[in-house]
Amino acid sequence: MEHSLSNPELRRQYDAAGFGGRVGWGNRPALLVIDMAGAWISPKERIGSDLTTVVHSILQLLPIARQRQIPIYFTTMSYGTPEEAGEIVCRKIPHTREMLRGSKRVQLAPELDRRPTEPLIEKPRASAFFGTNLLAMLIAARVDTVIVTGCSTSGCIRGTCESAHNYNFHVIVPAEAVGDRSASAHEANLFDIDARYADVVPLNDVLHKLNSVSIAA
Amino acid sequence: MEHSLSNPELRRQYDAAGFGGRVGWGNRPALLVIDMAGAWISPKERIGSDLTTVVHSILQLLPIARQRQIPIYFTTMSYGTPEEAGEIVCRKIPHTREMLRGSKRVQLAPELDRRPTEPLIEKPRASAFFGTNLLAMLIAARVDTVIVTGCSTSGCIRGTCESAHNYNFHVIVPAEAVGDRSASAHEANLFDIDARYADVVPLNDVLHKLNSVSIAA
Amino acid sequence: MEHSLSNPELRRQYDAAGFGGRVGWGNRPALLVIDMAGAWISPKERIGSDLTTVVHSILQLLPIARQRQIPIYFTTMSYGTPEEAGEIVCRKIPHTREMLRGSKRVQLAPELDRRPTEPLIEKPRASAFFGTNLLAMLIAARVDTVIVTGCSTSGCIRGTCESAHNYNFHVIVPAEAVGDRSASAHEANLFDIDARYADVVPLNDVLHKLNSVSIAA
Amino acid sequence: MEHSLSNPELRRQYDAAGFGGRVGWGNRPALLVIDMAGAWISPKERIGSDLTTVVHSILQLLPIARQRQIPIYFTTMSYGTPEEAGEIVCRKIPHTREMLRGSKRVQLAPELDRRPTEPLIEKPRASAFFGTNLLAMLIAARVDTVIVTGCSTSGCIRGTCESAHNYNFHVIVPAEAVGDRSASAHEANLFDIDARYADVVPLNDVLHKLNSVSIAA
Repeated sequence: MEHSLSNPELRRQYDAAGFGGRVGWGNRPALLVIDMAGAWISPKERIGSDLTTVVHSILQLLPIARQRQIPIYFTTMSYGTPEEAGEIVCRKIPHTREMLRGSKRVQLAPELDRRPTEPLIEKPRASAFFGTNLLAMLIAARVDTVIVTGCSTSGCIRGTCESAHNYNFHVIVPAEAVGDRSASAHEANLFDIDARYADVVPLNDVLHKLNSVSIAA
Repeated sequence: MEHSLSNPELRRQYDAAGFGGRVGWGNRPALLVIDMAGAWISPKERIGSDLTTVVHSILQLLPIARQRQIPIYFTTMSYGTPEEAGEIVCRKIPHTREMLRGSKRVQLAPELDRRPTEPLIEKPRASAFFGTNLLAMLIAARVDTVIVTGCSTSGCIRGTCESAHNYNFHVIVPAEAVGDRSASAHEANLFDIDARYADVVPLNDVLHKLNSVSIAA
Repeated sequence: MEHSLSNPELRRQYDAAGFGGRVGWGNRPALLVIDMAGAWISPKERIGSDLTTVVHSILQLLPIARQRQIPIYFTTMSYGTPEEAGEIVCRKIPHTREMLRGSKRVQLAPELDRRPTEPLIEKPRASAFFGTNLLAMLIAARVDTVIVTGCSTSGCIRGTCESAHNYNFHVIVPAEAVGDRSASAHEANLFDIDARYADVVPLNDVLHKLNSVSIAA
Repeated sequence: MEHSLSNPELRRQYDAAGFGGRVGWGNRPALLVIDMAGAWISPKERIGSDLTTVVHSILQLLPIARQRQIPIYFTTMSYGTPEEAGEIVCRKIPHTREMLRGSKRVQLAPELDRRPTEPLIEKPRASAFFGTNLLAMLIAARVDTVIVTGCSTSGCIRGTCESAHNYNFHVIVPAEAVGDRSASAHEANLFDIDARYADVVPLNDVLHKLNSVSIAA
């Protein structure tokens, strides 16, 4: 994979150390779309950046997932009040105070066209598993493989991949479908994610694989 | 902080975005010593590297923590059998299969001189909070501040800092007391940790602060 | 305590076995009000019953808690769609399918007069800790003692008490401030709660104690 | 089911309220054997009682589970020191201080003849899921159905059933394979478990069902 091979020496070191094995695909994937909402995808927002290519990649995945009846989960990050986040979290990440339920900042990009049966999970932290019911939804749907897309690679994507790996899901990251405001943070974290938590693979491989998934009974 | 300022432009970008605020100290710290055991601290081991300066830093923290009656928790990573880790985790991180309970690989560095009242937590994953009782121990001890030391910066240190932050602990990382087999992964992850999860500060600041903590009743 | 002494022989057996110790109060309490919403408090609802005396008890606790600046958290149980609960949960507890976000069924009793700074937690399961961010809110607020009120004793109250105890919070249940649709289930579960997870005490003791709590700085 | 029908009026009330639905079996069961260790199964121990019939029931389940290659997990409750349990837990349940790792009290009944590939999970609380890696083991093994056996019905069995239900596992309790020191607590909790968290069924039904499970590839 080009992204994680950008530093071949480091890659060799990690391979020798016993990291970066391939987890491959299980039998029942789900698609996670992380934080593709106002605050992150608008370059005018303080935590936003231009994620046009990420949106474009996700828009290629969504129709296939829907057609193959693969469960889809969207997340955003929002709170009723800053107290719900907690004082320490707000100190470290001051923009947390602005992520208020109902504001444009936390609304999904409309072009994703979320369907009512596709849960929208309001997550309080980077990982989509922390403080949410996502894990129980995945178990109910017999999911064994989690495809992680969205932003930001160095925060919510990495945190979500680590959690899903911890629970022994196969975790797959289509490289073109995740993004970050910083190119260097994106690169460094994609390397770590591939070495420790998930298989980082080309988007085309994921599109191809999803087309072969048998439709749920 | 020198470490996180190594890329001043990136730092400015993150400050502007509303990351990297200072959480400061609470009133009741605990010291976590992560994975300072055979497999990691011996350069002869496949996942090991030379962490002499990290050990040296931790050996400065331990006597003060003991003298000030600050709770201390050690971790290692071990399993009765690879089945306890789970197939997917073993595929991604093949050395997991070798981390067997009772082997030298998972034994703490003897110079840390762990006392019987200082819990040794066998953690199954990177974060010291995942699949362990650490959180309940911290709450029982009224801890509000977690000092994270040990290795590896890009794995267990970052994972532990993220979890502790998620729960709204003040998280403090003494820069000289954490280490990694890869200098570039160390640097990149220390930046992310400081921006998102913890205050990365000089060891001397932590030593100084601990000396001023009032001894628990 | 009258409630848990209703079967003195059983109580003696449990005392001898090393259950039912007193946890007492810590220094920083919080008040939890569990599921005092339409579906449970209206006798016309299928899972509802007459909880007038429970409401009355909670209405005595709320003004003191507000006056003493004790953090207050309300819960309800609601979902965007039944898929968010999950198929198995819906099979075991079919009324789950009817607990939809925005419906009257899941709205708090208006007489509780929740303030905007008092979080309303939408919990997906019996325990207020499962799949929510409550734990991180309690840690942020330095809470060490959780007062559990509301309904139902045999479900959400017991589940919440068990979780809070698991994390080493002092758990206090004012007997008159919890209720259940079944008198026998109420009685049996109050006994178990007192033996295993929480101190079940008279409401007057809690009112008296809260009046002595020092107001947070 | 005879056990939960012992109070037909209460049962009718719960059915009408939308509790006690049947979850049935999934495709991939696991067998949990909870706390069948010295402290609980010896009538001479303060928390012990005569659980001969429970042991006998479990001894009927184990050979079939092994023959059908169904994953089996044993638990016990033990700590290195009481500090690992935490002060509040030790106050409420004083016998916790005596459950020390390595003592006879925490050793499994030898007649269960645990195999090395059957994990022994040291759990710190009632639920086998709290503070352990059990959930990730179940996901790794693609388990969707959890058969809960052992003791005590009013504590660790109920807590484990609630957790497994929360995560959307099918939960099955063979009535003769769970026990409690108190007959009335056993009866009351079996009713609640069947109404809220699990299908309580005759042992023979479970034995019959396991014989029809296809052996894992």
